[in-house]
Amino acid sequence: MEQIKGGVCAAEGFSASGIHCGIRKNRGKRDIALIYSEVPANAAAVYTTNLVKGAPLIVTKEHLSNGKAQAVICNSGNANTCNADGIEIAEKMSSLLAQELGIGAEDVIVASTGVIGQPLDIEPIRAGIPQLVKALGDCSAQAAEGIMTTDTKVKEIAVSFEVGGVECKIGGIAKGSGMIHPNMATMLVFLTTDCAVSSEMLQKALSSDVADTFNMVSVDGDTSTNDMVTLMANGMAGNPEICDEGEDFAAFMKALNTVTVYLCRRIAADGEGATKLLECKVSGAESILQAKTVAKSVICSSLVKAAMFGSDANWGRVLCAVGYSGAAVDTGKIDVFFSSGKGKIEVCRGGSGVPFSEEAAKEILSEDEIEILVNLNSGAERACAWGCDLTYDYVKINGDYRT
Amino acid sequence: MEQIKGGVCAAEGFSASGIHCGIRKNRGKRDIALIYSEVPANAAAVYTTNLVKGAPLIVTKEHLSNGKAQAVICNSGNANTCNADGIEIAEKMSSLLAQELGIGAEDVIVASTGVIGQPLDIEPIRAGIPQLVKALGDCSAQAAEGIMTTDTKVKEIAVSFEVGGVECKIGGIAKGSGMIHPNMATMLVFLTTDCAVSSEMLQKALSSDVADTFNMVSVDGDTSTNDMVTLMANGMAGNPEICDEGEDFAAFMKALNTVTVYLCRRIAADGEGATKLLECKVSGAESILQAKTVAKSVICSSLVKAAMFGSDANWGRVLCAVGYSGAAVDTGKIDVFFSSGKGKIEVCRGGSGVPFSEEAAKEILSEDEIEILVNLNSGAERACAWGCDLTYDYVKINGDYRT
Repeated sequence: MEQIKGGVCAAEGFSASGIHCGIRKNRGKRDIALIYSEVPANAAAVYTTNLVKGAPLIVTKEHLSNGKAQAVICNSGNANTCNADGIEIAEKMSSLLAQELGIGAEDVIVASTGVIGQPLDIEPIRAGIPQLVKALGDCSAQAAEGIMTTDTKVKEIAVSFEVGGVECKIGGIAKGSGMIHPNMATMLVFLTTDCAVSSEMLQKALSSDVADTFNMVSVDGDTSTNDMVTLMANGMAGNPEICDEGEDFAAFMKALNTVTVYLCRRIAADGEGATKLLECKVSGAESILQAKTVAKSVICSSLVKAAMFGSDANWGRVLCAVGYSGAAVDTGKIDVFFSSGKGKIEVCRGGSGVPFSEEAAKEILSEDEIEILVNLNSGAERACAWGCDLTYDYVKINGDYRT
Repeated sequence: MEQIKGGVCAAEGFSASGIHCGIRKNRGKRDIALIYSEVPANAAAVYTTNLVKGAPLIVTKEHLSNGKAQAVICNSGNANTCNADGIEIAEKMSSLLAQELGIGAEDVIVASTGVIGQPLDIEPIRAGIPQLVKALGDCSAQAAEGIMTTDTKVKEIAVSFEVGGVECKIGGIAKGSGMIHPNMATMLVFLTTDCAVSSEMLQKALSSDVADTFNMVSVDGDTSTNDMVTLMANGMAGNPEICDEGEDFAAFMKALNTVTVYLCRRIAADGEGATKLLECKVSGAESILQAKTVAKSVICSSLVKAAMFGSDANWGRVLCAVGYSGAAVDTGKIDVFFSSGKGKIEVCRGGSGVPFSEEAAKEILSEDEIEILVNLNSGAERACAWGCDLTYDYVKINGDYRT
C-alpha cells in the first residue's frame, strides 16, 4: 500500500469540484462541492444516530436504498435541518444536479452542513450548479474546501493497494470541527474507490470500519444531526468484484482503514479551537468494548482536554475519567503514561501516582500530537480514540457561531 | 417553611468552624472545616459512582455503617485520592479529630477535595485540629469557605419547618465548581438538621432527594472521585422521631428539597468560569426518566453552553442535544423557548424554527439566570436540570489548575 496524491479524485473515473455559489456571504470561501463518477458506482453509507436528522440524510438514505450512486453534492454554511421545507430543498438539490449531469436524481448523495434551523435558499444552488459541473476535474482539495465549516485545514488522502494482482485506489475528503462525537457516524466524509466491490460487501466494510475509526473521534461530545460517511466504488480498476470475505476483502479493508484513520486524526487535530491532537491508547483490556469505553471517556473529558491545552500532566483527571467511564475496571491496576515526539513519561502505576519530572512532562505535553497511554493490565485487548484539547478558541468560535 | 440564617449551624446543637491550617500555600484561604453536633446524630450519605474513589469516602462509608455520626472534617487543596497511603491519612484525620473532641473516631465523617494524586501531608492537619475545635461556633460561612476549591462564592442556606407541631431546622453548606456531573451524588454537601429522623428514613429521604437535585446538576460532565452528600439529624428539636412515611416525613422531605435545590442552583451558577446559571426545564414528557434524560443532555452540551455564554439563541443546538440524548422522543413535536427576567421567547415549534427577534432573544439571554424550556408535547411529566455556560475562564482555570 502506498500513499498517493489526488484525494477523492485519485480513484479511476472520479472527478470533483468546489465553488462559491453564494450560500455564505464570504466570497472567498467555497460553499458547495461535487464528486462525480463517470460510471454508476456501488455505494454504502452510515448516518448519525441523532433522532433529529438533517433533511439531506433522509433523502440520501432513500436514494441509496438500491446500493447505487454516481454523484455527491454537499453545501456548507447551512445544515438544512429542522426546516419545514428541508426535504423538498434536498430533493431539489438532487434533481437540479441530476438534470445538469444527465443522471437519475436517485443516484445523487446529498449533504449539507452548517447552522441548524435556518431555511436553505435553493436559488444560489440552482444558479451555481452549472458552474459546479463545468469545474469538474482533478479538484479534490477544492471539493474538500467546499464542505468545510469552521475547519481550518483541508482534509484529503488517497492510497493505492492491490486486489487480485490489480492496482486499486481509494481516497476521501472530510469535514469535522465542531458537534463531533462518536455515534455510528460522525462528521461528513466522502470516500471513493475504483475497486470493484459489491454493494453488500461495501456496506459491510464501511460499517465495520467506522466502529473503530470515526466512532472513536470526539471533539466536543455533541453528536451532530447531519453526520454521514459515504463510500462509492465504481469498479473501474478492473479487479474481479469482491463479493465475499477473504484475501481481497481484507486488502480492501486495510486500505479503507488507512484512509479513515488518517481522516480521523486530521478531524481531531482540526477540532474547533484545537491546538493539539490527542490520542488515547488503551491496552491490557478484558475486551475491545472495555478498551473503547475507557478510551472514549478519557478523550471526551473536558478536564483532561483543558489540562492538555495547558500542557499540564494532571493524570488524576485521566484516572477520574476511566473511573466514571462505565467500564468495570480494576482501578488499582491502572498504569498511565504521556507520550509525544519529545519522549514518554510514566505518571501513574497501579492506580497511584509515581514521582516524575514536571519539567520533562511539560516538554512532552507541549508537542502538538499527544498520546495518553492507559494500561488496564487486565487482558490483551486494545482500542484507540482521537480527540483534541479544549481551548479559549473553542469557546470563542461557539459563543457566537451564527452571527 | 421559612428561610433563616445560620447555614449548617442553624439547627439546634450544631456548630462549625473553618481555618487555614497550611495545606494551601495561600494563607488568606481557609483550607479545613469542621461541623460538630453536641449529641450523636443519625446520619445518611450518598457517594460518587466513580470507580476511582477518594480514600476519605471509603473511610466515611465504613464509619457510617451504623447510621451514626457526630462530626464532619473536610479539607480543601488536596483530594487524598490515588495515593498509596490515602486510607491511612483519612483514618488519621478522623482519629486526631475524635481525640480532640472526645468522641469515637467511627463517628467522624471525613472528606477531602482538591488535586488528585498528590500525597496529603497529615502534619498541617494535626497542627490545625486544636485550633479548628477551639474555633467552633456559629461559623457556617467559615466552614463553607474551608471546603471551597475554585468556587468563588460561599454556598450555605437554612430553613425552618414544622414537624408534628414542633419547629425544626435544616441547613447545609456545599462546594461545587469543576468535575461536576450527575451521578448518584456530585460535589461535597454537608447537611444538618435538629429534626428527629431514624437512620433508615434519613437515608431514604436523602437518596430520594438527590435523584432530583444534585444528580441533575452538571458543570462539565466529569463525575468526581470525591463527591459525597451527608446529612446529620441530631433530634434536638424534640419532635417525635420520624420512623416511617407520612405527613411528618413529607414535611421533612419538602424542607430538605428546598435546601438542596437552593444549593444546586448556587453550585451550577458558580461552576468553573461560569457567568450564567442555566436551567433546562423539560415538560410534556411521557415519563420522568425521559424528561430527566433530555434535560441533562441539553444542560451538558458544550455547544449549548458556549452559545449561552455568547447570548446566542442558537436553538438548533438544543434540538440537537435532545436528539442525541438517548430518549425516544418525537422530534416533530418539540417546542423550545428561552426565558429570563427579561421575558420569554419562542424559537422552535413542532421541531422547526419560528421567526423571532434576534435582538429580543439577545436581551433575554444576556441575563445571568437563563431558562431553556423544552416541551416534548407527549405527556405530563417534567424534570429540571441545572448547569452553567462554557467560558474562556473555564479553559483558563483548567488549563493550569495544579501549578
